Amino acid sequence: MTDSIYTAACLYKLPDTEIIAVSPKTGPASIECFYEEHLSAIGVFQEIVKGDREESCDAYIISCFGDPGIFAAREVTKKPVVGIAEAAIATAKFLAPNFSVITLLDRTVAAVQEVIHRYGAAQFCKSIRSTGLGVLDFEADFDRGLEALARESKKAVDEDKAECVLLGCAGFVDFVESLRKNLGVPVLDGVSPAVKYAEILVQMGLETSKINTFAFPPEKEVKGFTIF
Amino acid sequence: MTDSIYTAACLYKLPDTEIIAVSPKTGPASIECFYEEHLSAIGVFQEIVKGDREESCDAYIISCFGDPGIFAAREVTKKPVVGIAEAAIATAKFLAPNFSVITLLDRTVAAVQEVIHRYGAAQFCKSIRSTGLGVLDFEADFDRGLEALARESKKAVDEDKAECVLLGCAGFVDFVESLRKNLGVPVLDGVSPAVKYAEILVQMGLETSKINTFAFPPEKEVKGFTIF
Amino acid sequence: MTDSIYTAACLYKLPDTEIIAVSPKTGPASIECFYEEHLSAIGVFQEIVKGDREESCDAYIISCFGDPGIFAAREVTKKPVVGIAEAAIATAKFLAPNFSVITLLDRTVAAVQEVIHRYGAAQFCKSIRSTGLGVLDFEADFDRGLEALARESKKAVDEDKAECVLLGCAGFVDFVESLRKNLGVPVLDGVSPAVKYAEILVQMGLETSKINTFAFPPEKEVKGFTIF
Amino acid sequence: MTDSIYTAACLYKLPDTEIIAVSPKTGPASIECFYEEHLSAIGVFQEIVKGDREESCDAYIISCFGDPGIFAAREVTKKPVVGIAEAAIATAKFLAPNFSVITLLDRTVAAVQEVIHRYGAAQFCKSIRSTGLGVLDFEADFDRGLEALARESKKAVDEDKAECVLLGCAGFVDFVESLRKNLGVPVLDGVSPAVKYAEILVQMGLETSKINTFAFPPEKEVKGFTIF
Amino acid sequence: MTDSIYTAACLYKLPDTEIIAVSPKTGPASIECFYEEHLSAIGVFQEIVKGDREESCDAYIISCFGDPGIFAAREVTKKPVVGIAEAAIATAKFLAPNFSVITLLDRTVAAVQEVIHRYGAAQFCKSIRSTGLGVLDFEADFDRGLEALARESKKAVDEDKAECVLLGCAGFVDFVESLRKNLGVPVLDGVSPAVKYAEILVQMGLETSKINTFAFPPEKEVKGFTIF
Amino acid sequence: MTDSIYTAACLYKLPDTEIIAVSPKTGPASIECFYEEHLSAIGVFQEIVKGDREESCDAYIISCFGDPGIFAAREVTKKPVVGIAEAAIATAKFLAPNFSVITLLDRTVAAVQEVIHRYGAAQFCKSIRSTGLGVLDFEADFDRGLEALARESKKAVDEDKAECVLLGCAGFVDFVESLRKNLGVPVLDGVSPAVKYAEILVQMGLETSKINTFAFPPEKEVKGFTIF
Repeated sequence: MTDSIYTAACLYKLPDTEIIAVSPKTGPASIECFYEEHLSAIGVFQEIVKGDREESCDAYIISCFGDPGIFAAREVTKKPVVGIAEAAIATAKFLAPNFSVITLLDRTVAAVQEVIHRYGAAQFCKSIRSTGLGVLDFEADFDRGLEALARESKKAVDEDKAECVLLGCAGFVDFVESLRKNLGVPVLDGVSPAVKYAEILVQMGLETSKINTFAFPPEKEVKGFTIF
Repeated sequence: MTDSIYTAACLYKLPDTEIIAVSPKTGPASIECFYEEHLSAIGVFQEIVKGDREESCDAYIISCFGDPGIFAAREVTKKPVVGIAEAAIATAKFLAPNFSVITLLDRTVAAVQEVIHRYGAAQFCKSIRSTGLGVLDFEADFDRGLEALARESKKAVDEDKAECVLLGCAGFVDFVESLRKNLGVPVLDGVSPAVKYAEILVQMGLETSKINTFAFPPEKEVKGFTIF
Repeated sequence: MTDSIYTAACLYKLPDTEIIAVSPKTGPASIECFYEEHLSAIGVFQEIVKGDREESCDAYIISCFGDPGIFAAREVTKKPVVGIAEAAIATAKFLAPNFSVITLLDRTVAAVQEVIHRYGAAQFCKSIRSTGLGVLDFEADFDRGLEALARESKKAVDEDKAECVLLGCAGFVDFVESLRKNLGVPVLDGVSPAVKYAEILVQMGLETSKINTFAFPPEKEVKGFTIF
Repeated sequence: MTDSIYTAACLYKLPDTEIIAVSPKTGPASIECFYEEHLSAIGVFQEIVKGDREESCDAYIISCFGDPGIFAAREVTKKPVVGIAEAAIATAKFLAPNFSVITLLDRTVAAVQEVIHRYGAAQFCKSIRSTGLGVLDFEADFDRGLEALARESKKAVDEDKAECVLLGCAGFVDFVESLRKNLGVPVLDGVSPAVKYAEILVQMGLETSKINTFAFPPEKEVKGFTIF
Repeated sequence: MTDSIYTAACLYKLPDTEIIAVSPKTGPASIECFYEEHLSAIGVFQEIVKGDREESCDAYIISCFGDPGIFAAREVTKKPVVGIAEAAIATAKFLAPNFSVITLLDRTVAAVQEVIHRYGAAQFCKSIRSTGLGVLDFEADFDRGLEALARESKKAVDEDKAECVLLGCAGFVDFVESLRKNLGVPVLDGVSPAVKYAEILVQMGLETSKINTFAFPPEKEVKGFTIF
Repeated sequence: MTDSIYTAACLYKLPDTEIIAVSPKTGPASIECFYEEHLSAIGVFQEIVKGDREESCDAYIISCFGDPGIFAAREVTKKPVVGIAEAAIATAKFLAPNFSVITLLDRTVAAVQEVIHRYGAAQFCKSIRSTGLGVLDFEADFDRGLEALARESKKAVDEDKAECVLLGCAGFVDFVESLRKNLGVPVLDGVSPAVKYAEILVQMGLETSKINTFAFPPEKEVKGFTIF
């Protein structure tokens, strides 16, 4: 999946942009519930600190449609941090009056709802539909995954009157091209636009507001993990 | 003011991007109330149709922090249309948990509120502050304008706890640099980021969803104006 | 359609009330999208100024369920301005705990939603249903129009549990009587109640608040249109 | 106070309209808390049933800015029932983009908030200000009452940026004229407009929707009170 | 029904807790509309005053899922007052991300909606479903009542994706046990948890905040009823 | 601080309730930002699994007013999980029409806001005030901490009209008694009521709904942490 994300991230990047796609050293194989979001966060922080210290990264993209610590990540670095859900939502709002999200499982609907609320998008969201398949199902059987995404996307357009479809999992980037063909509305993943948003924030010289909420964490003893 | 906007639009544009900055042939000298928003809309539509037919424009930016017909403009063309208010808001949300907007006059607060609601940003907006000066005052006396913007920006940060400041008028682009120096939070105009959002939508091959709400207007007799 | 509106406006007017029904000199033949709302606004302003100067009108009614410039119209004159959507909504709220709106087309649902929000009625609105027919279809074939309105009204009551039905187009005034017969809930157009609201505002000597948001527009050069 | 309300109710009534102003036979001398709202409701129902049976009333006005059983009253009769808070709010929305309410006491702010929410007016309400005086204080000392109302109204306009002021107690009708003189924004009581709304609902032949929520109460034994 | 409530109230009470279950001396035989809510309130206040004066009650439970005067009851006594709707909602929120409510009749949906809003639970409420049966139907035919509750509960889970079911009538306490067996989600009545909440408020020495909104009613003449 | 929490947890517990107060083996010394919330979550999950496997715990209390993984914790176990913020909020709603929260620092206001929204309490929250002191400041200097809490609590009551005060940090439990003396409104910490809510959920035999959102996490390889 990291390879797919890397490919999607490179699709529209500027020539000079260098993408480093990493899967954190700690955490679960995929993120399909609140628990796994939290398990992923530590590794996300570690990669960001490494990016700041060793790789001189200009910005960070968190490739999960849920929330494995985005606000916290904005505390950890002053470089821009872009989540793929907010990137997809921001893009949809420029193109359509509303959208639906296709998520993995019934149980991940709640996490998408939290994200939708957090970014002020509840009034634009027509529905959150689940495919009933997990991350590994999509990796194991492309055709079955495509069929499920196409089916739910079509229902979102026909039944829920969505005028744009967001793919609610970083693992769905492989399906964007195929889905766009027949649906008649924009189909957006979050990975490609997140790269573009990161690029333009860097280009405009903008950094995270450090005045209060997203200030660096206080220096303090942390047991069990080494982040900084 | 069109020159200032042109300069701001060029600040961060890609080398290959060509900016055509136009002031519509019809409409008021500036936009400071709902009435003037409406008077501006006809000219906006005419420029967009001209851009589609004669100039092969790839995208359109509407440089008004209020709403001189953005949804209607998305009906008129299939090319992306970006408003500067939504561009500024989208940018702020990547950088800070909240923001305040500095607008011209007490009477324009209501128009900003409509825009804030339309883009789902009410939950992020700490305050809308007015300078008490009109567009022409800012053009006539730079120092007085800067002083007013600096004063209200500082109040937004200190009293309203805003962690980002949005400049709620295209005419404020000249003041961005000076304001950024001492405020301690990101100061954003909408013109520069709007150019960047337009660029990336074009680069990703995305166009306005034409399936329903933003479909082209029906062909129909229009008395008094020639748009198409 | 102006004749139908005139007839509906006269239905319940006081004996001394004089109705002047005008179709603005500029604008589209009907209003079925955001673009056409904006095209209509200039003509609306011109008629209001003419009404103030030449006809000593006491109040103005804007007979469109969408928003062809109502807030702007309140800036242009100090006389009360009443829109038919807000008139229908205000009436419904006195009679029922909720309502549905029947609109023309799928694409006009979004414009009705804006209006519903603007008047603080989202919590009362059970659904917005579209007939799939345009303004001219209703004019061309009464029976087909009636059938479509009756069908959607019944669905609003039976499926969406609406306890009142609002007809979301000024052109629907011809159908009110027929629709009321069998539906079992109040069926409201906005034209007749708008006349009554205008009458009582005049009778009570009330005018638009001119202290800030709805103050007269600043005197300013306007290119291309003569309003004042 | 019933006399004052009668006078206010007659101010703008049509010549043929007959006003019957009654103070229910049971209940508290004034309404200044939730408890007193409930104590008043029984008498309200009794008067409505009497009005239906003995006086052939065409509509009912409940002259309390709080809620002594308005929804219940709509169950008890099919004739229109108009509350003075909703009448004042509906009027304000035709005239101004927002309003403030002046209420009696700090403790009645919560009841006004409930009413504001119930009528979908939260987005228009700039503030609810209390005078610190009770109903009887206003009756006992006109000048002191006027001074308190004028002071809070002015603060609502100057500090809270209200563009219309609603008088949040039926007992305030005596003060409307004096308050209007210097404030510069519309000052509205609810009694006069409620009469006008009742008149026009009757004139248009409209009655409460009886299909579900406001259907007549089921016939049932009631201990302790005789209503029907 | 008072017996059923008593039984449910005793189910989980602490050994030392004494339950006094009373049906007020005045009011309707059951509560199935807004009108009946108001008719019940007087008797509720009388019982509370009696409880304070004669029975040294430590807390009060109002066993109606609607609102027969809960805020008013909090004015009448300083002892904690717990409603069964808020008790059920509070419990559900500890156990599930959302819930549905099963109410009696279509007409009682609106009263439940008011309660849901009042307790800030709109964002958690998936649906309010009605059985189509009245209170007396449930008393007259247990099996028919159970079948209706089971059917709507299952629809709430399967169709509305509710993850918890609240029984929206005190009379449903007899059905809890049977409903829990097969549904697969928590099924909650409000009576048992209300007793527990009352117990713990008493145990922690907490009383209603009397500083403003819920202060004791002012001493005042009340015609027709003797409460204090 | 764990000792203080233990003491507060025991204040009102039932005689048979055994409290095990633990500070997770991993994580930061205190929680004062989003980052530290995430760092704490892993340890919380580990303690819960240990509690389930080794200590036969009947319920879990997470003693942080922010959110170190409460939804995730509900996935990890089927036993009830109670957070102290939701416990404090639930208690306040039984006692007062609104409340304010006193939090540590300006930067923790945002985390409290998230919690307030998550529990549907935005409509009840008058203000969130910060003391400007960190967790360790409160531990180091009791008098200074008390003075800060008393000052902000008083402002919440006097200026923000709060009728109940919530102490927004587990570390504030030591100050409850002193604060209650002079404030005139209920002062609530979340620890003591959380224990009571946990007790009653256990007593009523209730467990977390496992049907969907809070189902156990899928079995899956997790790198770097051992939780189950």
